[in-house]
Amino acid sequence: MYEGPVQDLIDELGKLPGVGPKSAQRIAFHLLSVEPTEIDRLQKALQRVRDGVQFCEVCGTVSDKERCRICSDSRRDRTIICVVEEPKDVQAVERTREFKGLYHVLGGALDPLSGVGPDQLRIRELLARIGNQDDGVDVAEVIIATDPNTEGEATATYLVRMLRDFPGLSVTRLASGLPMGGDLEFADELTLGRALSGRRAM
Amino acid sequence: MYEGPVQDLIDELGKLPGVGPKSAQRIAFHLLSVEPTEIDRLQKALQRVRDGVQFCEVCGTVSDKERCRICSDSRRDRTIICVVEEPKDVQAVERTREFKGLYHVLGGALDPLSGVGPDQLRIRELLARIGNQDDGVDVAEVIIATDPNTEGEATATYLVRMLRDFPGLSVTRLASGLPMGGDLEFADELTLGRALSGRRAM
Repeated sequence: MYEGPVQDLIDELGKLPGVGPKSAQRIAFHLLSVEPTEIDRLQKALQRVRDGVQFCEVCGTVSDKERCRICSDSRRDRTIICVVEEPKDVQAVERTREFKGLYHVLGGALDPLSGVGPDQLRIRELLARIGNQDDGVDVAEVIIATDPNTEGEATATYLVRMLRDFPGLSVTRLASGLPMGGDLEFADELTLGRALSGRRAM
Repeated sequence: MYEGPVQDLIDELGKLPGVGPKSAQRIAFHLLSVEPTEIDRLQKALQRVRDGVQFCEVCGTVSDKERCRICSDSRRDRTIICVVEEPKDVQAVERTREFKGLYHVLGGALDPLSGVGPDQLRIRELLARIGNQDDGVDVAEVIIATDPNTEGEATATYLVRMLRDFPGLSVTRLASGLPMGGDLEFADELTLGRALSGRRAM
C-alpha cells in the first residue's frame, strides 16, 4: 500500500508474533518520527541477538555467561531442581520469590506431531545432572513445572517415568486448581475437577 | 530480568507503540528461534527507514520517488484535493475507492499545547498549490478530511478561514454521523447530534 522502504518495514514488522497490520503500520510511522539514534539502539539489540545468545551450560536458560546468575549463586538450594519448558518460565517462577532452588530448561514440551520427541528436549542433560554429583550435593527433589496443557502433561508423565529410577529422589508436580482471585462459577470443568481431586486438609 | 542481549532487545521492543512488556518478551524469544536471515531482513528494512524516507514533493505523503504514485498518475482528477493529517489517512481514503482526486498531507493537526501551530503543518504548501496553477488546472474543491476530534476540527476551522480568499473554490468537510453497521442506541451524544444536524433529504 505504501511505497518503498516504509512498506517493507511494515511487512517485516507484521511477521512478528502479535503484531497485526495496523500495529505494524503504527510502529513504522512511529519509527519514521523518532530520532535515528532510537532506531540505532533497536538495530544494535537485534544484531546482538542475531549474533547468538548464550545459554547456561547447566540449566539451559538464556545467559550472558557460560553459567547463569542463578546457577552460579551459592545461596541457591542445590538439592531442588525445578524443570520448566522455556526461559520465560524461569522468570515466571522467580517472580513468585517462593523458590530458592535451581532450574532446568527443557527447551519445549513433547509434541510428536510437531516432531518434538525426548531427544529434542534437554532431558538427557537433566538425567545427567541428577545422576552426576560433581559438587557432592545430592538432588533430593525435582519439581516438574511444565505447562498444564496436553504437551506439558505428556512431558510431565514422561519425566516421572524417567526419574523413577533414581532412589530417594522425590518428584513433584505444580498444583493444578482454581486460580487465586478467580470465581468458582466460571472455572472450566477440567480445572474444577483438578481442584477437587487436589483438595487439601485445612 | 533476563541477562544480556535478550533483555536489551526486550527493552528496545518495549519502547515501540502498542508493544507491552509481555509482547516484547514474546517477540524477543520469537527472534531467538527464527533463522538469522529473518532478523537480517528486519534490520535492512529498519536501516532503509533510518537512512531517511522520501516524501512526495507535491502532496507530502511517503514516497520512493520525488513525486508519489498518486500525484504522478495522470488519470487522477487534479481539480479536487483531499487534505489529511497523515500518510496513513491517504491509505484510509484510498481504500474506499471512492476518491479519484489528489491529496495533501498536513503532517499533523493544530495542537498549540504540544507546540504545533500553522507553521509546523504543510499549510503554506497547500495554499501555494491552490494559488499556483503551473499545470493550467484550477483546483475547484478542497475536501478537509482531518480527524473528527478537537485538533482535527480546529485545523479544519483554520483551513476554512485560510481558503475563503480563493474565489470560486469550494471547501467541504467529510460528513460526521453514525458509523455504518452501528447501533443508534450506542452512539455517543456528539455523534448522534452531528448525524441529526447533517441529516439529508431522501
